[in-house]
Formats: sequence, structure tokens, C-alpha cells
Amino acid sequence: MQVRIGELSRTSGVPVPTIKYYLREGLLAPGASTAPNQATYGPEHLRRLRLIRALLDVGKLPVAAIKEIMYVVEQPQVPPHALMGLAHRYVTPTGPREHSPEWDAARAEAVRRVDALGWRVEPESVAFDQLADVLITARRLDFAQFLGGWDTYAQAAGEVADRDLTVLAERAAPAGDGTAQRVSMVETVVLGTVLGDAMLQALRRLAQQDASARRFAADA
Amino acid sequence: MQVRIGELSRTSGVPVPTIKYYLREGLLAPGASTAPNQATYGPEHLRRLRLIRALLDVGKLPVAAIKEIMYVVEQPQVPPHALMGLAHRYVTPTGPREHSPEWDAARAEAVRRVDALGWRVEPESVAFDQLADVLITARRLDFAQFLGGWDTYAQAAGEVADRDLTVLAERAAPAGDGTAQRVSMVETVVLGTVLGDAMLQALRRLAQQDASARRFAADA
Repeated sequence: MQVRIGELSRTSGVPVPTIKYYLREGLLAPGASTAPNQATYGPEHLRRLRLIRALLDVGKLPVAAIKEIMYVVEQPQVPPHALMGLAHRYVTPTGPREHSPEWDAARAEAVRRVDALGWRVEPESVAFDQLADVLITARRLDFAQFLGGWDTYAQAAGEVADRDLTVLAERAAPAGDGTAQRVSMVETVVLGTVLGDAMLQALRRLAQQDASARRFAADA
Repeated sequence: MQVRIGELSRTSGVPVPTIKYYLREGLLAPGASTAPNQATYGPEHLRRLRLIRALLDVGKLPVAAIKEIMYVVEQPQVPPHALMGLAHRYVTPTGPREHSPEWDAARAEAVRRVDALGWRVEPESVAFDQLADVLITARRLDFAQFLGGWDTYAQAAGEVADRDLTVLAERAAPAGDGTAQRVSMVETVVLGTVLGDAMLQALRRLAQQDASARRFAADA
């Protein structure tokens, strides 16, 4: 079903000027021309609008990164598994990283530790960079005993990831064509990653406060 | 054992000019005067220097917040459990929040959900604000099925928090006096919270990539 831009705006909740901005920036493909200065838009535009909103509002991604993602979801030769790695790269904090021998050793250790868990992960994943930072910081600040929690953290992360993949499989399998599925998959990975980070952060603090209330019961 | 500023710098790894800056800013209490323009520093200065470094480098806290924390750890009437709530407040992201009826309802829902887990948490905890944001965003973006993972996330957070509290109890019980213990406790909460967030984030992405590799094995 093809609709005018006003109807696309009402259905998506995105204001018309914002949709026009996305069209100008190339985030959204042009509609089908029906007359000079008139075009109509289909369901695929609606799906892309939702993905753009998720990437901008929740993922806080810059427009340039969103353009790249929009391009990649159109490429049928990029397999679904690679799409997840791509989406992760954009929603993982990356600061400027030192590349000292100490850091390289920490990164190699991170890869070995994850390998020992039996997880199959491409060694170039940015999540290893993040782990290397944690390993180095914990040791520099004399907090190596924190790393004793490794197995507990890995198990908790595994349980949550299993659940995440179940949601992904349910949500990223619409009746549409291959591209619709890929758009939905990237959207779900980005939303689920960002929302899940926040939910896990908040619940961990609440669980710590509960555990602390019990432990320090006398003064709580 | 009292040492000069040069020795304090060598032991802590913090450069002398930086220590002088902390002294000027009131982050660090003055040493004991031994002669005009000479002072010596004890183990409590070393502990505070470590805490300042942790708050600045890992917690990324502003100097004004660190001053507040340094003040509070000196107040023996503030109970340990309240110190954890305070430390959490400083290391939990807080954006500008709308205070609409919808948001208030989401926050009340967050409190009810956590209450239903049987967790004892003060209702003013900032972690509830973070949860309210997650609830609202998930629903606005038609991703309510994400919230179906609530129990899995809560359980994982609980396992990790138990481990965190064990480390806290080991590390925050030095042989020193009450204040030394409080300094060590705040330091451990801030370091453990920030490092734990990063480790959990990284491990969750790696576990998702592993789960995705298995699921999409054909193309991985």
C-alpha cells in the first residue's frame, strides 16, 4: 500500500519536515514519483523510519553511521551473523585506545579467556577491546580480585544473551522479503543492545542495594 | 609512617604537581606540618589518592562531585549502606528527564516490579529512573516483547550483585579505623560498578555473537 508523506508521518509519528530531512540526507530512499513534487511511500519506508529513529534516539548514533547501516542492510550478500557484528560495533563505546605492548597483551588475554568459555567469536570484535580496558584498569588500580568474578559475569551474560537471541529470532522474522528481515534484525540488535545495557545496569545496582541492605541490616 | 610528598608520589604513582593540585582543590586534606613549606603524609593520604584516581579516571566524575564524596566518607554517622546508595548516584547516567504522567507511571511500575522480586531498595534510588526510561522507550518503539526478558535479566543481575558484595566485603575491611574502611568501601563500589558495567556489556555482546554464530551457523 502506497501513501503520501502526510500519511507516512501520521503512521510513523515522525514529523513531515524530519522525514524530508532524512530524504535529503539519503537516510531514506526516495518514494515513487506520482507527479512533479509528489511521491508515495510504502511499508519499507515505514520500517526504515522506525530503524532510523531507533538508531538516532536510542543508539545515539551520528547521521554518518546511520547512512552506513542503511547501506549495509540493503546488501543481501552480507549474512545475518555479520549484521549483528556490525550493529554491535556501532553501539559499543570506543574511546581513544593506547596500543602499548601492555594493552596488546591484555587484549590477547581477553581473547584467550573468552575462547576458554567455549564461545565462538571473531577475534576482531570490538567487545574484546572493551574487555582489554577492563583487565588493564583493574590491575592498575590494584583491583585484580574483581577479575575473580569472571565466571559469574560470563554465566550471567550468557543467560541474558540466550534470551536476547530468542527475542531477535521472533522479531526479525516478518513475513516480508529478505531486506525487510535484515532491517528488522539490525533494529532489534541495536534496540535490544542499548535497552539491555541500561536494564542490566539498573538491575545490578538495585540488586547490590538489596544485598547491601541485607548485609548491613543493622543500619539499613 | 609519615612520608614527604615526593615519596607519596612514588608510592601512589600520582605526579607531585597533581597531588599539589588535589591539595589546593581540597580533595586531599593537608599533611602534618613539619617546617614552613614542609609537610608529611600518612597512609590515609595514600588511600584517598587511590580513591580520587578511581573516581576521576574510571568513574569520570567531576571534581565537585569528588569533593562531596570526600566530605561524606569523613562523616562517621553516615551508615555503610547509605554510602553505597551515594556512590551509585554518582556513577549512574542521568540525562534530563521528562516528568510527564507517563514517566511517573513508568517509574511507579519499575518500583512495583522490583518490589515483586522481593528486593529491599529505597524507592528514591536513581536506578529506578533508569528503569523507567527503559520501560518507556521499549513501549514507544513497539518493543514491549523486550520486557519479557525481565526475569532473566533480574536473575543475572542478582547473581552478579552477590559476587560484587562478596568482593566488597573482602576489600572494604582493612585493619584500619572506621574512616579507612569507608574510604575503601566507596572506592570499591565506584570501581566495581564502573568496571562491572563494562565487563558485563562486553561479555553480553560476545555471548550474543556466540549464540548468533550457532544459530546462523550456515553463514557464520
